[in-house]
Amino acid sequence: MKEVRVFAPATVANVAVGFDILGFAINRPGDEIVARLNPDITGLKIVAITGTGDKILPTEVLENTAGVAAYTLLKHLGKEDLGIELEVHKKMPFGSGLGSSAASAAGAVVAVNELLGAPLSRESLLYFSVLGEEVADGSFHADNVAPSLVGGITLIRSNESLDIHHLPVPQNLQVAVVHPDIEILTRDARAVLSDTISLKKAIRQTGSLASFITALYTNDLPLLGRSLEDHIVEPQRKQLIKGFDDVKKAALECGALGCSISGAGPSVFALCDSGYLAQAAGQGMQEAFALHGVNSQLYVSPINQDGVVIL
Amino acid sequence: MKEVRVFAPATVANVAVGFDILGFAINRPGDEIVARLNPDITGLKIVAITGTGDKILPTEVLENTAGVAAYTLLKHLGKEDLGIELEVHKKMPFGSGLGSSAASAAGAVVAVNELLGAPLSRESLLYFSVLGEEVADGSFHADNVAPSLVGGITLIRSNESLDIHHLPVPQNLQVAVVHPDIEILTRDARAVLSDTISLKKAIRQTGSLASFITALYTNDLPLLGRSLEDHIVEPQRKQLIKGFDDVKKAALECGALGCSISGAGPSVFALCDSGYLAQAAGQGMQEAFALHGVNSQLYVSPINQDGVVIL
Repeated sequence: MKEVRVFAPATVANVAVGFDILGFAINRPGDEIVARLNPDITGLKIVAITGTGDKILPTEVLENTAGVAAYTLLKHLGKEDLGIELEVHKKMPFGSGLGSSAASAAGAVVAVNELLGAPLSRESLLYFSVLGEEVADGSFHADNVAPSLVGGITLIRSNESLDIHHLPVPQNLQVAVVHPDIEILTRDARAVLSDTISLKKAIRQTGSLASFITALYTNDLPLLGRSLEDHIVEPQRKQLIKGFDDVKKAALECGALGCSISGAGPSVFALCDSGYLAQAAGQGMQEAFALHGVNSQLYVSPINQDGVVIL
Repeated sequence: MKEVRVFAPATVANVAVGFDILGFAINRPGDEIVARLNPDITGLKIVAITGTGDKILPTEVLENTAGVAAYTLLKHLGKEDLGIELEVHKKMPFGSGLGSSAASAAGAVVAVNELLGAPLSRESLLYFSVLGEEVADGSFHADNVAPSLVGGITLIRSNESLDIHHLPVPQNLQVAVVHPDIEILTRDARAVLSDTISLKKAIRQTGSLASFITALYTNDLPLLGRSLEDHIVEPQRKQLIKGFDDVKKAALECGALGCSISGAGPSVFALCDSGYLAQAAGQGMQEAFALHGVNSQLYVSPINQDGVVIL
């Protein structure tokens, strides 16, 4: 039976300066999704979910992130009755702030699209994968899904219209991501955020955002470092991440350009201007977590430029 | 006696998406400043101020924007006792939202620096001209001074550290600026602004800011148009500008990419992708003001790339 297996990369959203509008992909970890034609069944069926540890993901298509993403794509193509088996192999932790559900949704649409002979372009798959992630997250937003799907650093001007832009990736930019063994639910991470921000902080934040974008276009890593400041979300969310201040300090002392919370946390990322520095910063961050009694996993990677790949 | 005469251009600050962090220069209007060596006097003296209509500007050096800018530069150079006459010829209205005091400050430092044989670079004059504008405005901010001094579109990452960046100017970009005969004091324009903004609006605004910067780097004028949205300041300040909604509507109906308030107002600017469209949009805006019984002046110009020029 014809099948397609894909890898969908983890992603770092928010990126200190771009709450809900910026994200980038990393090489590892990520999810594997398999889509397989099965003429003996009718419609889409989730036949396997692995790697969820002691958590349980729904196998009902319309309750599952990958399922919804794949189903809405099939429905759009008028193929919702085609017999397709879907396997979801989670190879990254849930609730890590690394876009776990987004990766499953992005992987599912690419696998199914490829299985059907790739009728849609990669970009036009975005809508369906965002619908999929909405099941897990409760809101329609593309800051994890877009970079997982297409790779690179992506800007979402508008989630409503999915006005998405690919930003340039400076040479030498490397990422250290540390995932501590701390659990934060996305809804708790949202709950600690105030509904309002001061105009003064907004001005500082927008200055840093604009210069971050400028730094990407001009390959100016020192400017990128000066720009990686979060005056709004990080101060509110760091309380949920034991040892965060020391972890960030360690990253900067190891030469990172900047360090902040990945997505809703608890993962913490540092951007660096070499793989060597990213490794050093990552180890420094792990040691700082360890001093607070927190175990962690380290991933060092360039910015992933590929997005979902067919294996 | 040796003298230097300069022209300092008007500027549009905020630019819809970059409150307190973005500004650009236009070719007209602007101020002329003359600095002249006079060995018969000691220190800096303001000997003429023209073009102020029925307003009076202080002739006391340390109370005058141009005076403070020039004096602090001279003091920095150890030349504060040198006999220098300063003339300030205002060729643009006060309180117009076109950076009138910033132009005087920028012009004064360039004129004095040139008179002394240009010991400082254009960029290092910025600090002194911002100090000058602070006298008029009460706050240390560079969003008008920087583009008047160096031209182009400028980004201020941080006013504290004067971390200023030159942004690229898309080909064909043209500006229509309409100055209506309405008086708004900068402090009133500040007073109508709420100290806080909603996180939701901040997210929309930052998406538009980031895509505006992206549009400048990619020469993508349709994206620039989609990005020219002010969800925060314009809705609060437009009440001070009689007829604003109709004026904006007229600009967009005439094909402008976007339209918003220049600085603290009352001037309104529209960005367009040709001089022809800018002229049409400008006339449409003037007609809309006229229907509200408001007279106005129109300036059509490309983005001024020169900043202060020596005449």
